[in-house]
Amino acid sequence: MPLVEAIERHMEGNPVSFHVPGHKNGLLVKGAHQQSFLRYDLTELSGLDDLHEPMEAIADAEQLLADYYKTKKSYFLVNGSTVGNLASIMSSCKQGEVVFVQRNCHKSVLHGIKLAKAVPVFLETEWDEGSQTALGVSLDTVKSALEQFPQAKACVFTYPTYYGLTYPIHAIIKELHKYGILVIIDEAHGPHFGAWQGVPPSTLQMGADLVVHSAHKMLPAMTMGSFLHINSDRVNKNAVKSYISMLQSSSPSYPIMASLDYARYYLANLSSEETAWNEVLVDEFIHSLESINSLLKVTRTGDLLKILVRLEGVSGYDFQRVLEIEGVYTELADPFQVLFVFPLMKTKFDFPFKEALEKISRAINNANIDKKEIKRFETLPRINKISSLALSLDEMEVKEEKWVPLEDSVGHISSQMVIPYPPGIPILVAGERVTEEKVIRLKVYWENGAKVQGNHKLENGQIAVYDMLEVE
Amino acid sequence: MPLVEAIERHMEGNPVSFHVPGHKNGLLVKGAHQQSFLRYDLTELSGLDDLHEPMEAIADAEQLLADYYKTKKSYFLVNGSTVGNLASIMSSCKQGEVVFVQRNCHKSVLHGIKLAKAVPVFLETEWDEGSQTALGVSLDTVKSALEQFPQAKACVFTYPTYYGLTYPIHAIIKELHKYGILVIIDEAHGPHFGAWQGVPPSTLQMGADLVVHSAHKMLPAMTMGSFLHINSDRVNKNAVKSYISMLQSSSPSYPIMASLDYARYYLANLSSEETAWNEVLVDEFIHSLESINSLLKVTRTGDLLKILVRLEGVSGYDFQRVLEIEGVYTELADPFQVLFVFPLMKTKFDFPFKEALEKISRAINNANIDKKEIKRFETLPRINKISSLALSLDEMEVKEEKWVPLEDSVGHISSQMVIPYPPGIPILVAGERVTEEKVIRLKVYWENGAKVQGNHKLENGQIAVYDMLEVE
Repeated sequence: MPLVEAIERHMEGNPVSFHVPGHKNGLLVKGAHQQSFLRYDLTELSGLDDLHEPMEAIADAEQLLADYYKTKKSYFLVNGSTVGNLASIMSSCKQGEVVFVQRNCHKSVLHGIKLAKAVPVFLETEWDEGSQTALGVSLDTVKSALEQFPQAKACVFTYPTYYGLTYPIHAIIKELHKYGILVIIDEAHGPHFGAWQGVPPSTLQMGADLVVHSAHKMLPAMTMGSFLHINSDRVNKNAVKSYISMLQSSSPSYPIMASLDYARYYLANLSSEETAWNEVLVDEFIHSLESINSLLKVTRTGDLLKILVRLEGVSGYDFQRVLEIEGVYTELADPFQVLFVFPLMKTKFDFPFKEALEKISRAINNANIDKKEIKRFETLPRINKISSLALSLDEMEVKEEKWVPLEDSVGHISSQMVIPYPPGIPILVAGERVTEEKVIRLKVYWENGAKVQGNHKLENGQIAVYDMLEVE
Repeated sequence: MPLVEAIERHMEGNPVSFHVPGHKNGLLVKGAHQQSFLRYDLTELSGLDDLHEPMEAIADAEQLLADYYKTKKSYFLVNGSTVGNLASIMSSCKQGEVVFVQRNCHKSVLHGIKLAKAVPVFLETEWDEGSQTALGVSLDTVKSALEQFPQAKACVFTYPTYYGLTYPIHAIIKELHKYGILVIIDEAHGPHFGAWQGVPPSTLQMGADLVVHSAHKMLPAMTMGSFLHINSDRVNKNAVKSYISMLQSSSPSYPIMASLDYARYYLANLSSEETAWNEVLVDEFIHSLESINSLLKVTRTGDLLKILVRLEGVSGYDFQRVLEIEGVYTELADPFQVLFVFPLMKTKFDFPFKEALEKISRAINNANIDKKEIKRFETLPRINKISSLALSLDEMEVKEEKWVPLEDSVGHISSQMVIPYPPGIPILVAGERVTEEKVIRLKVYWENGAKVQGNHKLENGQIAVYDMLEVE
């Protein structure tokens, strides 16, 4: 861990800080939180290198990262996978160029396209009945898109999904490469993919050109710590470097960078005995969970470390609240279920599974749950697999907005992004026509108690649309 | 401290984490660094609010921040003042609009202008003989710029300078407001300005429209923690909100946000007795420092908490290395001096001044310093106060690059940004003509051992320029 060690070496000398940050190695922060914030929070001191021009500890740490994932070049990111997606897209497409994008991508992908002033072509995903969530795009959809837009420059796909689902992405990458299209994969949820046989392969192993990993999501790294991998010579390396430098703090956080160094080390030194324990413990936990109550149903995902849990007849939001009363916090709730994210463990003693099961059992026994009928998405109308924006970015800049009731919004063009969070996947994008399906989906999330980001007035039942004088 | 308290409340319950981040409240990180990284590193759990759509603890914490600084609206930033500058500029100028910018601004200001595709007009600063560093822009320069470019939309000034220097910015703000120009102040180094009589006022008190504060630099906040203040109704509030959301991680760091909450609390509760101690201790320290050795010269800056220290006949870089041998780390070195940044203390016992003086004394007595003649900037030729890029952004996109020796580069147009770090202020900007003065400055930094960021080959004496076929 070259960076962790460089920081430890620095701190060993009991150094006096006449530099930023203002807490002076933590001296000014009193109380319980002192140690939590501060010990590693240093700056570009001698021996600690510089993220924006690495030559020593950070360069070594990034080289070990590239060696582990077998990439051409790998970067530590301190502004999350958000900046990985922004830089990947902005370095791959110029103003006016077509980029294929999975319709239910993370909002940062849409932001990257907007900043690049590229032209998105949205590809609708398949639907997974088991998890009641969106899956990936199909090869057929990609082939149709290639027929309509053979001039496309790049594409962005999410693999795996937030829910840990996988789909046949290898064939899609091969098809797109036939057309010379640069493949960007938002693999935020799969930094551990390919680490051993018990988890799916990474798209790095399938020839994707640029791959983004949220190290902090599944590895023991700090939040905002991510990796960006350049995996082919098709990538404009200088442009990638330039954008990650422009879009990240010129004073990057050493705790976050050090935690990335730790996470790489942790993953690279995972033994087969350790991975086997993860499989055994997850199996045991699922078995014990289903024994608690017959209404508890577990759905496994493509990712060993993610399971979906439903309490029959109860919305995921209500189920999540019940668990929280006993101090059990899950990753997300949707109308149907909650998502549990397990740790990637080194030993069977790392995580309090037994205590968790006791708390879950208590939570369900004590719960006073208001059962409600949960609307299911499967009854929703099918929509077009391939769609574009109804207005160009230039047209959007000069249009006025107005507020309309959600009920009357079908056919209008949305002027804002509207995003239930989690999972942070936009239902409406600025410039896109509102369809009946989107209105129904938004209502399901809202009425079941999801938080919704974006500029909306859903508490008054309204969304913002462009004032087109008449609905076309 | 609503956010600190919300996090403490959450942790009190000994919660079980089935959510990201992957370290599971620190369980997976072993060894000395465990507590340093992780205790506060949570995610958007119930009760912990959401930075991108704040309604609870984060909304309360940001309101307390706005109340303290008396602004229209204040934001916590987790991607440093970098994102504050980017969002301020991108929300204030559209493609092709003119923006006045202090020539020696932070690189993030130039990045913001590039991303906005605005047209920069550079204003040269005055020179401060005492500190041998750049000061601010003069009112005369601003008036000349207004005559030449009355259509300018916005301006960006740095106040105070990295070295803690101030200049008559109030008159400049008033002059620019007469023309309806939006005033953005990169006040990264002055989050404590205006806190009491012993430090200069903040530009927030002078009517600046948008002000960016690196809370982490002078207050006890974590690195990457900054504030963005909207201080007038002239600002496009929706655009600001939209850009800070686009350019920051969708998983913002709770330790950084909590440390911002702590920093605001710390500043808002600073008593006059406490500020008096800071003044006394700085005076005592300077006096003791000058008593160590007659070659030690201290220059005070506008900021009580910053002093410049020279060891006569020795470059700042060499002086810094000598201090580091004894474990005394300063903020920056330039060819002449080092910059000491003092803590903003609550008590006289917060910081080991006595130990620091002993270490400095030992450092100087033990030092084997290779004295060299230091080149001084004051002999450099004067240059034009107002300058524009020699090539537009569109022209730059289609030009090829070539490498030329630094000696032969005068008259060429630089194709890369070249930035000695610290202080992170560009000497060459892409699209700008290379002048003799810039070449000389760059040589002074390079030959004295500064790190230089950007795409250059200074180790071979070369920089990149656009291939114009002939030098115009």
